[in-house]
Amino acid sequence: MAHSPVEERAMSRALELAQRGPRSRNPQVGAVILSPEGEILAEGWHRGAGTAHAEVDALSRLPEGGAQGATAVVTLEPCNHTGRTGPCAEALIRAGVARVVYALDDPGEVSGGGAERLRAHGVDVEAGVLRDEAADLIGPWLTATRLGRPHVTVKWAQSLDGRAAAADGSSQWITGPQARADVHARRSQADAIVVGTGTVLADDPALTARDGDALHPEQPVPVVIGARETPAEATVRSHPREPLFYDTHDLDFVLADLWDQGLHRVFVEGGPTLASAFIAAGLADRVLAYVAPVILGGPRVALADVGVPSIDRALRLRVTETVALGDDILYVAELRDSAEHNTREHPVAEQHPPATAPTEGAA
Amino acid sequence: MAHSPVEERAMSRALELAQRGPRSRNPQVGAVILSPEGEILAEGWHRGAGTAHAEVDALSRLPEGGAQGATAVVTLEPCNHTGRTGPCAEALIRAGVARVVYALDDPGEVSGGGAERLRAHGVDVEAGVLRDEAADLIGPWLTATRLGRPHVTVKWAQSLDGRAAAADGSSQWITGPQARADVHARRSQADAIVVGTGTVLADDPALTARDGDALHPEQPVPVVIGARETPAEATVRSHPREPLFYDTHDLDFVLADLWDQGLHRVFVEGGPTLASAFIAAGLADRVLAYVAPVILGGPRVALADVGVPSIDRALRLRVTETVALGDDILYVAELRDSAEHNTREHPVAEQHPPATAPTEGAA
Repeated sequence: MAHSPVEERAMSRALELAQRGPRSRNPQVGAVILSPEGEILAEGWHRGAGTAHAEVDALSRLPEGGAQGATAVVTLEPCNHTGRTGPCAEALIRAGVARVVYALDDPGEVSGGGAERLRAHGVDVEAGVLRDEAADLIGPWLTATRLGRPHVTVKWAQSLDGRAAAADGSSQWITGPQARADVHARRSQADAIVVGTGTVLADDPALTARDGDALHPEQPVPVVIGARETPAEATVRSHPREPLFYDTHDLDFVLADLWDQGLHRVFVEGGPTLASAFIAAGLADRVLAYVAPVILGGPRVALADVGVPSIDRALRLRVTETVALGDDILYVAELRDSAEHNTREHPVAEQHPPATAPTEGAA
Repeated sequence: MAHSPVEERAMSRALELAQRGPRSRNPQVGAVILSPEGEILAEGWHRGAGTAHAEVDALSRLPEGGAQGATAVVTLEPCNHTGRTGPCAEALIRAGVARVVYALDDPGEVSGGGAERLRAHGVDVEAGVLRDEAADLIGPWLTATRLGRPHVTVKWAQSLDGRAAAADGSSQWITGPQARADVHARRSQADAIVVGTGTVLADDPALTARDGDALHPEQPVPVVIGARETPAEATVRSHPREPLFYDTHDLDFVLADLWDQGLHRVFVEGGPTLASAFIAAGLADRVLAYVAPVILGGPRVALADVGVPSIDRALRLRVTETVALGDDILYVAELRDSAEHNTREHPVAEQHPPATAPTEGAA
């Protein structure tokens, strides 16, 4: 059954409301309650773990019986799970809601199934309205919930020709102040920042999220991976959050442990070896490449071996955004996970197959 | 003395007219003759070597005495040189033109000095109107004339991370069909395409400018640089233009020889070693980087050593255009020549000097 233009507009509004909530372990969700005539009766959104879910927040703004026969428009499938809050499907049924329109299925094993429960109680349910817009909003949460591991963003800065530093290792600064400010803003939205011990030893980074000289109110947990010891005087040891050290190269283990600690949005900052290892392992859900209009040449590549033996195994990016930051360009892109690498629809070589054709350089 | 809005509009028109002329060894130039009241009396443009210059072309459309007291608006300083055509400055004086407005000074040692001659004959002269627009149009000609060597464009295709091929050398195709079509269109505007012998041996390229399977009517001369022999059966030997072979790595010598042969717009296509050598030598006036949304990693970089030892010597690009070509992005950029590399206004390191700050990767 189709949805109405009024319901689609209500979904747009619900997506706006969702963004008022914090980015946290829980997804950002918004809800609008419509009267049978299509008037907005109430609005709600989720304010973070332990508080009411969006649809319950909206219902709470109505008097007893006020949602009788109404339509609930929600950005995520109402949950079917009694956690710190009751199941939303149940609350909607009790409130007498006649119809529920939502954007995205809840991928959670525990929380999913709300739509089924609603239908079993005679509620009319419509899924998928403005699904793409909703997925853009809570993509990392969706990925993490679906995969049962943290959502991983791998970030690097490079010259146009893919170098992270000049031949002698000097690299401050390839990108400009706007690109660096953008990195700090995105750090503050992550739960953890991950670097290799090589980067700690070479650069002694603070790994804080800063706004100019000031610390952002939200700080990610610094995470250092690698066998070498982080010196006692390393700046990262003064981070406002207690750093985590992993003396291992087993990235699956590290991610599982971060997940268990509730660190679900991970920001990998390098160096090149660690960034490449995450990409090669198919663990990079999103990449952020800050590309400066500079040529460096030489040996210090921003990415090393990423496990691509031949062009038909190239890692094709879905570029979701290119953002001009001063003179630099930020590429925001998704990488399919490794299972998909081998079965993706448009392998580079198969698009243009002439096996005897000359190669890329000149033809 | 200032110019009027009517004159500026006439200059815009002259720039449009200029583009009707062919891109050849001579610059594209347009001219408009205005009556003292600002009406357009005649228009002209240059149709290529051996034909009338733009202002003479425009004057030829007027009856005897028709330009008396008029204003000539020309995109390039009227020449002061009797070549295959007479000096334009002289023709304007004889026609009784009272005022000349032009965009760009003629940098030619032989042809320059027209403005001075006009002034000496009492003509009112105004230079610099829409100078930037005019420079965009005939930039390569200006550069070549100023430097006394061909204008050099270095082109390469790369993955986002700066690779020209996967680890095993396979590279067809990193970029998509739109990017490749763009390369062919730009080849047809060049006088010569330059590759290294390594590329000839590895890829056996045709080095023709093609539109689908058809040859463009204008073909650049193929040029092969390097010590190794080009095989008798190499495809480049069947090129519609006779190929040139240079058994030398002296790029200055090659460019001087191409200049002497009237090949003034040179398109360098690689491989990586040759492209990097042109850049390192400060001989790349323009770069075209076709960047595909793909990650390859591994050893096959699109640019190798370009002579940048440290970040303060980074080759900063002036990106004049970024063009979306299907999924790919073309960067069109200018590189300052090597003399300017050492004295440019904004060296990367000096913009952000803290010597003790951490490097680019994470901070």
